Amino acid sequence: MARVLTVTLNPALDLTVRLPSLRLGEVNRSESLQVHAAGKGLNVAQVLADLGHQLTVTGFLGEGNPQAFEQLFAARGFGDEFVRVAGDTRSNIKLAEAGGQVTDINGPGLAVSDAHRSELLERIKRLAPTHELVVVAGSLPRGVDNQWFVELLNLLKQTGARVALDTSGSALRAGLETAPWLIKPNEEELAEARGIELAEPEALAREAWRLQIEGIEHVVISQGANGVSWFSPSAALHANPPKVQVVSTVGAGDSLLAGMLHGLLEGWPAERTLTRATAIAAQAVGQVGFGITDTAQLAELQAAVRLQPLSQ
Amino acid sequence: MARVLTVTLNPALDLTVRLPSLRLGEVNRSESLQVHAAGKGLNVAQVLADLGHQLTVTGFLGEGNPQAFEQLFAARGFGDEFVRVAGDTRSNIKLAEAGGQVTDINGPGLAVSDAHRSELLERIKRLAPTHELVVVAGSLPRGVDNQWFVELLNLLKQTGARVALDTSGSALRAGLETAPWLIKPNEEELAEARGIELAEPEALAREAWRLQIEGIEHVVISQGANGVSWFSPSAALHANPPKVQVVSTVGAGDSLLAGMLHGLLEGWPAERTLTRATAIAAQAVGQVGFGITDTAQLAELQAAVRLQPLSQ
Repeated sequence: MARVLTVTLNPALDLTVRLPSLRLGEVNRSESLQVHAAGKGLNVAQVLADLGHQLTVTGFLGEGNPQAFEQLFAARGFGDEFVRVAGDTRSNIKLAEAGGQVTDINGPGLAVSDAHRSELLERIKRLAPTHELVVVAGSLPRGVDNQWFVELLNLLKQTGARVALDTSGSALRAGLETAPWLIKPNEEELAEARGIELAEPEALAREAWRLQIEGIEHVVISQGANGVSWFSPSAALHANPPKVQVVSTVGAGDSLLAGMLHGLLEGWPAERTLTRATAIAAQAVGQVGFGITDTAQLAELQAAVRLQPLSQ
Repeated sequence: MARVLTVTLNPALDLTVRLPSLRLGEVNRSESLQVHAAGKGLNVAQVLADLGHQLTVTGFLGEGNPQAFEQLFAARGFGDEFVRVAGDTRSNIKLAEAGGQVTDINGPGLAVSDAHRSELLERIKRLAPTHELVVVAGSLPRGVDNQWFVELLNLLKQTGARVALDTSGSALRAGLETAPWLIKPNEEELAEARGIELAEPEALAREAWRLQIEGIEHVVISQGANGVSWFSPSAALHANPPKVQVVSTVGAGDSLLAGMLHGLLEGWPAERTLTRATAIAAQAVGQVGFGITDTAQLAELQAAVRLQPLSQ
C-alpha cells in the first residue's frame, strides 16, 4: 500500500436537502438535510483509503466552517495539511424534490491571498518527496489563476513526484502544458480544453497520442455510460461497464481515477487495473454517494466489465 | 447583574442563502451563505449577555451538528448545559432573492427520547436554584408533548424559580395553566391560545386581568409596529415605538423579552423598563440580526419611545 498526497484547491461543503416539493416564496418542509465534506481531491482520497492506501490531504480550507472536513479527516485517518484561509469554504446546496427535480445553489469560493498560496507551495514541496503519488483535482478558487496553477504543477514535477491531474476548462488546458504523469478528463472536458471535436473514436485516439508525445504517460478518458478509454505507454484499452441503475453520478469520475491509480500503484497488469477501476466507478453510479462498501457486489460488477484493445 | 438560565427545547440552525434569483431545476449561484445557531431561548440569552448578565443555556441539542452552537456558547461565555440527543438539530434554510422573494425550507426537529427528557428535568432541577430567573422559550421538538412541558414548568415553580415563558399554540395554552411569573405572547398568539378575539384594546386589558388573576404577575403583549402593552402588579402601560425602517424582524420579540427581563432584574421603575425594552426591540427590527451593537443609536431610539397608561 502506498502513501498518496491529494491536493484540493477548492473544496466544497455539499448540503443535500430532500423535500416533497419546493414552492418559491413559501414556507416548505424538508425531510432531511445531509452535509458532506466534498471536493474532487477529497473524493479520490476516500476511495484510495477504501483501497488500503495512506492519505495526506492538502489545499485551501476556510477557517469559518472546517468541522465537517476535520471530522472526515479524523474518521478516515487522513493527515491534515490544508492551509486555513479566512472565511468559509464554499457551500453547494442541492434541493432534491420527491418528483425528481433538483435545484442547485452553488456558493462563492474562498478568496486566497498571496501568503496562502506561498504557504501551500511550501507545504507541497515538503510533502511530495515522502509520497509515491500526488493527485491534483478539482477547480480553482478565487485568487488562484492558471499561471500559479502551472507553477504548482511544475514545482511538483521538480520534486520528482508522479502527478495525476483531474480538472477542467482553462485550468486543464494550462495544466496539460506541464505534462503530468496521468490525466483523467471526460470526453467533453478534453474536447473543450484542446479546442477540438471528438465525435469519432479515431479523433480520441489521435488526441491521446498527441498528449503522450507531449509527455503525458497515461491518458484516461471517461465517457460516461460508454465506458473508459486508457492510453498508456504499453497499451491502449477500452472498457465497457456493466449496465447499472443510475442512482447518483456524484464521485463516479473520482472513483474511476482512484481505481486507476490503485492498479498503477500496485503494479497490476493493465487489464486488471482498468477492469477494477471501471467496476469501482460503476458501483459509485449505482449508489448514493461513493466508496467501496460492498466487495461482493464489486466482484460481480468487475466480472461484467468488457475490455477491447484500441488501435492508436 | 444576574445569573439567568434559558431553556431552548427546539433550537435550530438557521442557514441564510442570498442569491440574485432562484430558478427551479437549474444551477443557481449564491452570493453568501450564513449559518447561525438560533432558537428563541438562545436569542434571549444573547441579548441578556449584551446587557451584562451571566447566562447558562440548556435544552436539547443534536449530537450531529453542534459546532455552530458550541462556537456561540464559547464566544459568549454561556454555561453549556444542553442535553445531547442523537441526530441533527433541525436546519431552517432561508433562500433570499435580490428581488425580495424569500423561500423557507424548514427541517424536521430532533426526536427526543424518554431518557433525554428525564436528563433535562434533572439538570433543570439542579440549575434553577442557582439562577435568579429561568426563561423557557420556543417550540417543542418531536417527543415532547404539552403534558411533559407542563411537568417541566411545574418543576421549575417547585424550585421557587421565577419563570418567563415565551411560546405559542397549544404549548402556550398548556403553559399558561402553570401560571408562570411572566409571559410575552404577541396579540395573535395570545388570542389563539385563549380562543378569543382581541379586536379592541378593552378586550386585551380584560384578558390580561384574567391572566393576572390566574397567577401570572407580568403579562407583556407585543403588538408589532403598534408597540407593547405591559400589565404588571403595579402598573399597566403601553409603549409606542419610534418609526424604524424594517430590515428584519428576526429576534425582535426575543429582544423585547430580554429588555423587559433586564429592567425587572435590575429593579428599575416600570417606565424605564418598558421604554428601554421597546427601544431594544426597535433596534433589532432596524438591523440584520439582533443584539445591542450601537448604544448611541439605542439611546436615540429610547428617547423617541412614547408611553401611556392603560386602564384595566
